[in-house]
Amino acid sequence: MTGFIKINNLSLISGRIKMKRYRKELWFETSKRREFINITREVEKCLKESGIAEGLLLCNAMHITSSVFINDDESGLHQDFEKWLEKLAPEKPYSQYLHNGYEDNADAHMKRQIMGREAVVAVTGGKLDLGPWEQIFYGEFDGKRRKRVLVKIIGD
Amino acid sequence: MTGFIKINNLSLISGRIKMKRYRKELWFETSKRREFINITREVEKCLKESGIAEGLLLCNAMHITSSVFINDDESGLHQDFEKWLEKLAPEKPYSQYLHNGYEDNADAHMKRQIMGREAVVAVTGGKLDLGPWEQIFYGEFDGKRRKRVLVKIIGD
Amino acid sequence: MTGFIKINNLSLISGRIKMKRYRKELWFETSKRREFINITREVEKCLKESGIAEGLLLCNAMHITSSVFINDDESGLHQDFEKWLEKLAPEKPYSQYLHNGYEDNADAHMKRQIMGREAVVAVTGGKLDLGPWEQIFYGEFDGKRRKRVLVKIIGD
Repeated sequence: MTGFIKINNLSLISGRIKMKRYRKELWFETSKRREFINITREVEKCLKESGIAEGLLLCNAMHITSSVFINDDESGLHQDFEKWLEKLAPEKPYSQYLHNGYEDNADAHMKRQIMGREAVVAVTGGKLDLGPWEQIFYGEFDGKRRKRVLVKIIGD
Repeated sequence: MTGFIKINNLSLISGRIKMKRYRKELWFETSKRREFINITREVEKCLKESGIAEGLLLCNAMHITSSVFINDDESGLHQDFEKWLEKLAPEKPYSQYLHNGYEDNADAHMKRQIMGREAVVAVTGGKLDLGPWEQIFYGEFDGKRRKRVLVKIIGD
Repeated sequence: MTGFIKINNLSLISGRIKMKRYRKELWFETSKRREFINITREVEKCLKESGIAEGLLLCNAMHITSSVFINDDESGLHQDFEKWLEKLAPEKPYSQYLHNGYEDNADAHMKRQIMGREAVVAVTGGKLDLGPWEQIFYGEFDGKRRKRVLVKIIGD
């Protein structure tokens, strides 16, 4: 009976209805303690790989001494950021921070609060829905070791 | 045969299961270089238009010298913010920032990092799920020109 | 007729296809004006309760003088944060802020901007998809009264 076969096909679909989801870790190892890396192309690749056309993309540092943030890809500004963050939360003297008993990175935990942990980006028509100058950066404040960023996308 | 007609109806639904999604740009042109604008009503209108009852709403500046943030709608506090941000990242002298070769807005890029790029708001029962005093603001730090905010909502 | 019964079962599912969603408020009352509370276990409980395996979790302060942020669970660092935030946005003298006509908490509105309102966390395989040292905190800057945090999860 044709009707019965169709019903079975439908039951396959109705048994489990899922959003699309995608997850990837991006790894970085900077040669300097502090560095800003434009990761927009990497994140775009993730989105393409995901096949998701509409949804939300979360991009966050998985470490607590680094940031993911959105700003301008301009080297003068990045030097300004470095100087500014050093003014607001200086690295040295290490002894000014209680956290620096066994560590020397208290300043990095602070710099990361100013620059933020994560960016949430809209996904529209299969693309990152960014303004004309918006670029996604990994901000490293305690580098010279392997650290990672999470990209998670949900949608359909 | 009644049964067969019903099967066909179902197959229409099973063919493509989608989350609801909504996208809108809100445009602003401030008369001053720096200004805070309460956009909660505008964002509520977007949510109503979307017909989404449950989900997440992303509201972000599409420019890198402005912010979307949630705080208090109190004019004294806004003047305090203005003074405080000028203390942490002063506009002048322009020459203190490398970014200001062709530009004069390095301070705006910094102010926006403190105030943030985006707010993610829960959508519950068709409403913005905000606390009693939470209001959504557009924070302009380099105005006097047309700039925009993205509202993206996903859910059902 | 067996086939007809099956069709009716399916129509129940096809009538309303929904993402899973979950909402909970976490309440806090600190004994001090400023305090950091690790809420990671509480948020994990919410996720378990939700039954959501894949999606996004939003955790935000519902008050504008407190924060939800992700950083290190190290008491030395928390004391460093306290000192640092007092340097960037001092509580006293109250008279330095216009907001403090009827209030005394202008500094709390500023501290919260630096530490942030919200964290968005990926949900993967039924767990909070956090890096090894990432812990979720409630940051209170104007306490000694009942205040709350929203946990909203969407996914499937």
